[in-house]
Amino acid sequence: MKLITAVVRPERLRAVKEALFRAGVTGMTLSRVSGHGGEKELVEHYRGSSLVLEFRDKVKIEMACSEPFVEPCIEAILSAARTGEVGDGKIFVQPLEQVIRIRTAERDVEAL
Amino acid sequence: MKLITAVVRPERLRAVKEALFRAGVTGMTLSRVSGHGGEKELVEHYRGSSLVLEFRDKVKIEMACSEPFVEPCIEAILSAARTGEVGDGKIFVQPLEQVIRIRTAERDVEAL
Amino acid sequence: MKLITAVVRPERLRAVKEALFRAGVTGMTLSRVSGHGGEKELVEHYRGSSLVLEFRDKVKIEMACSEPFVEPCIEAILSAARTGEVGDGKIFVQPLEQVIRIRTAERDVEAL
Ligand SMILES: Nc1ncnc2c1ncn2[C@@H]1O[C@H](COP(=O)(O)OP(=O)(O)OP(=O)(O)O)[C@@H](O)[C@H]1O
Ligand SMILES: Nc1ncnc2c1ncn2[C@@H]1O[C@H](COP(=O)(O)OP(=O)(O)OP(=O)(O)O)[C@@H](O)[C@H]1O
Ligand SMILES: Nc1ncnc2c1ncn2[C@@H]1O[C@H](COP(=O)(O)OP(=O)(O)OP(=O)(O)O)[C@@H](O)[C@H]1O
Ligand SMILES: [Mg+2]
Ligand SMILES: [Mg+2]
Ligand SMILES: [Mg+2]
Repeated sequence: MKLITAVVRPERLRAVKEALFRAGVTGMTLSRVSGHGGEKELVEHYRGSSLVLEFRDKVKIEMACSEPFVEPCIEAILSAARTGEVGDGKIFVQPLEQVIRIRTAERDVEAL
Repeated sequence: MKLITAVVRPERLRAVKEALFRAGVTGMTLSRVSGHGGEKELVEHYRGSSLVLEFRDKVKIEMACSEPFVEPCIEAILSAARTGEVGDGKIFVQPLEQVIRIRTAERDVEAL
Repeated sequence: MKLITAVVRPERLRAVKEALFRAGVTGMTLSRVSGHGGEKELVEHYRGSSLVLEFRDKVKIEMACSEPFVEPCIEAILSAARTGEVGDGKIFVQPLEQVIRIRTAERDVEAL
């Protein structure tokens, strides 16, 4: 099992959710985050200007998946989240050792 | 060491915190999240209806633990978070390579 | 590649961001969280008092890095986040199997 985390533009969230649903994802957790992806902003001061890191509102989507769903999920996110402009976001894949469904105490692939 | 993440109903948070405390957990991080766990909702439109993914407010609890605390923690969460209705939540266990306490720069099990 | 997560005091965030920027970090994701780090609070009641876990506002910073950046990042966080008082925060390091830049579909170290 893997934990897939995607950080995307809020305005692409609806399309990403629909694409994930079509890819067969049945569980996900969303958080509002603030992200920096390399952009700097020139800030004018009273006696000059300086470069500051730019932060933008993003949405973080986390999904626990079994192995066969990993590539379909990534493809779904790539196609639905991309605008082609800088700042479209990132996908991270991490190992996941256990998943447990609280209602039934089922573990691992049965819990997904 | 492991990172345990639980996504639970906000109304069970207090009971879960107490159960974790009794299980010996001394550190945890909480976030407000929005979650989908398979439920679909029928939305009525002007000319029909459609299925949309239902999202609910949940709380995410993250705890870094040493191995002997992993099962007691899971048991504490299972018993305190369960209502028996769909949507009770999920527990995820991930590998954790390093933990560092910022105040002292202690690392790993000493930092827990 | 690793995922570094730091939970720090909100009032140290600006210093931590500057230190990470000087250490060469070009991407990070921030969330507002609520944290417990062992402190208990005595709460007075109508007929006595009880110990409750104290929760404080913290900021969670997540950064995906390639291996050579891991120690410089940790050092940057340690020096910028530390006040010397309890509650300065924690750093967690986890394995990261894949990173993908959504705009270009580049994977792994090229995506960082
Ligand atoms: N290395 C990283 N670690 C953690 N989060 C990151 C990292 N890089 C980017 N992010 C998150 O992803 C969001 C979008 O990043 P962004 O799309 O700008 O990545 P990028 O690699 O700079 O790609 P692009 O060149 O297309 O801008 C950021 O706002 C941040 O939340
Ligand atoms: N695969 C998943 N990946 C990430 N988060 C998930 C996943 N499944 C569930 N969650 C999170 O857990 C919350 C509760 O899920 P839920 O309890 O509905 O899981 P479930 O497997 O559908 O169990 P049940 O059949 O009891 O409803 C969701 O709202 C979501 O935040
Ligand atoms: N084991 C843990 N798992 C998850 N989050 C933790 C853990 N320990 C601490 N945290 C997070 O880090 C924040 C700061 O913790 P804190 O600095 O109090 O750690 P500590 O180990 O108690 O160190 P100190 O002795 O300096 O207080 C907490 O509010 C919480 O968000
Ligand atoms: Mg960028
Ligand atoms: Mg469900
Ligand atoms: Mg503490």
